[in-house]
Parts: sequence; C-alpha cells; structure tokens
Amino acid sequence: MRVLGIDPGFTRCGIGVVESLSGKKLRLVDFGIIRTDSKAPLQERLMSLDAALSDWIERVSPNAIAVERVFSQLNVRTAMATGQAAGVALLLAAKSGLPIALHTPTEVKAAVTGSGRADKAQVAQMVVKILGLKEAPKPVDTTDALALAICHHWRGSSSEALASAAKKERARLGKLKETNSRRSRSRN
Amino acid sequence: MRVLGIDPGFTRCGIGVVESLSGKKLRLVDFGIIRTDSKAPLQERLMSLDAALSDWIERVSPNAIAVERVFSQLNVRTAMATGQAAGVALLLAAKSGLPIALHTPTEVKAAVTGSGRADKAQVAQMVVKILGLKEAPKPVDTTDALALAICHHWRGSSSEALASAAKKERARLGKLKETNSRRSRSRN
Repeated sequence: MRVLGIDPGFTRCGIGVVESLSGKKLRLVDFGIIRTDSKAPLQERLMSLDAALSDWIERVSPNAIAVERVFSQLNVRTAMATGQAAGVALLLAAKSGLPIALHTPTEVKAAVTGSGRADKAQVAQMVVKILGLKEAPKPVDTTDALALAICHHWRGSSSEALASAAKKERARLGKLKETNSRRSRSRN
Repeated sequence: MRVLGIDPGFTRCGIGVVESLSGKKLRLVDFGIIRTDSKAPLQERLMSLDAALSDWIERVSPNAIAVERVFSQLNVRTAMATGQAAGVALLLAAKSGLPIALHTPTEVKAAVTGSGRADKAQVAQMVVKILGLKEAPKPVDTTDALALAICHHWRGSSSEALASAAKKERARLGKLKETNSRRSRSRN
C-alpha cells in the first residue's frame, strides 16, 4: 500500500509518498514541493498544479491520496486558495479512480506523535524516526505531507472502509456519468 | 460576448448565463442550479460537479467564466468547501481555454446596484430590471450567479485585458505542458 500525501497550496504544495512494508513498518518513497509562480495568472497556476500532481500520480502510482483538511486557518482568503488547491488535487485523485481521504492537522499530529497538540518540531522529529531518515526533509511542507501519508497508513481500518466505499461509488458513478451524458445529448 | 457566472458550492452551485447585445444591453441566456448529494462521498460530489459544469460549458459555449470570490465567510470549514468547488470550476474553465475572473460579492453588488452594501433583495430587483425579467429567478444562488455574470460584463475593460492575458498564457502554457510531458517521459 502506497499513500501520496498532499499539503495543498498554490505557492508551495507539499508532497510526501510513504509505503507500508510488513506489519506497521513504513518506508519513504519520495517527497517534494510543487511551486507555482505567484505572479502568474490563476488559470496558469491551476493548470501547473494539476499537471504536476498528475505527473506525481503517474510516477509513484499510489493506492490512495490523503489531503490535509484545513480548519484552523483564520484567514478566509488563504482558506479559499487552499481550498481551490485541495479541489484540484481531490478532483484529480477522483478522476484517477484513487480513494481519497481528508485528515485534519490534529488527526495527523495525534497519529504521528500521540498528541493532537504537538508542535511542528515534534512532528518532524517523529517523521524522521518513523521513516528512519537522517534528518527532516525541507521545506516543512514536505514533512507535513509525509506526516499526512503516515497518518493515512495508521488510520488503516477507516481508510480501507473508505477505499471499499470509493470502489462502490466509482462503479455507481460510471453508471451516473453514462446517464448524464445521455441526458446532455438529448438536451441538445 | 457570453458570460457564465458561477456561485460555487457542492450543495447548491448557482449558474447564470448572460450575453451582451448592442451597447450595454444584456440578455438572459439561461440559469440553473447544480446540486450534489450531501450524503455522497466527496469524490462523487467533485466528479458530479465537474461533469455538470462541463455540460453547461458545452451547452452554452460561454466566452468567459466568472466565479464568486468569497472573503466574507466567517466559517473556515465552509470557505474550504466553497474553495474546493471554486477550484473545480476554475480548473475546468482553464482547461476549456476560457478566460476566468473572480469577483467579490462587494464588486458584484456595486456593479449591479451601484452600492457595495446592497442587500440580497436589492440585487435581485436590479437583476430582474437589467435582464427584463418578470420575477427574480429562484433559488437565490441563481440570482447571485446572474448578478456575477452582469458584473463581469460591466467590468468590461478589465475583463478584456484579462482575456488577452489569458490567451497569451495559454500559448505559453502549451509550451510549458510540452516541456513537462517531455520531462515526465525522460524521468520514467
């Protein structure tokens, strides 16, 4: 099982890929940052993010996508932008037929450190320990994305339930889409 | 010039299509609501919204897409969801090669009623008057989407600048995408 964790954003989108070995042992596959030009028009940033995420999915072939669900941002303008970036990531995952899950920062911290109130440094320390790394990957968005992927692995049973639900829904959706396109054709 | 206005959301996504006739005269083309099932998994809601918006774009062939930029929502959870829905709409518009613009509710109110502090009823009244309708379309999300489309028409010069910028960017983006896919191939 291989999980692609995404800490969504247009300026810096953190990516962390973690796979499970025997038992609860986890292994780092890859990590990185997708940046889009803050001076570029929004349509370019959206398409760059979509293309780069698509490259990642193609390259690492994950079995699931985990995206950070941000509640705590007090700045609504930032929350909207983060939401737009998350929307791009989630739609891409859905179209790729991959199960998706959203985890809150508190869930991630609790899964990785045992405390939902852990600070960034504690989370980074545990990511290093769990994945057997020499030091915390930088920038911090990549560590956040790896922590998210670890969280997704360890919330296993719920993720599996989600995957199975997603599979059912994709089957249903296939039928729905057919119906929609028939409707659309008959409308014209 | 035909503008598709989108008041983004998963539960109710308002759609309003307005085209310009001679001078500043505007005409209603169509309006509607896209609903996605609140009990359905997120991936289904994302794909339903994407498919339905795609149907609208295909059917009404707009020259531009206007999406409401929400700043004022105090609930960050709602702002994130609205942001995700906006992300789906904006990415689709970008992929369709259509210029996109975001207008804030204050800009919309100011464009339609002359006052950025107008209430919903005043906006609805002006939409009815401007488009020569008998009554305000319901639910209110459709009126909001129509007001957004009207705003986009009347902020003309900036929209045209945007369209021209978007055209340039699409050309640049075409090259960028080629480079990316070459990179992706060489990486495998």
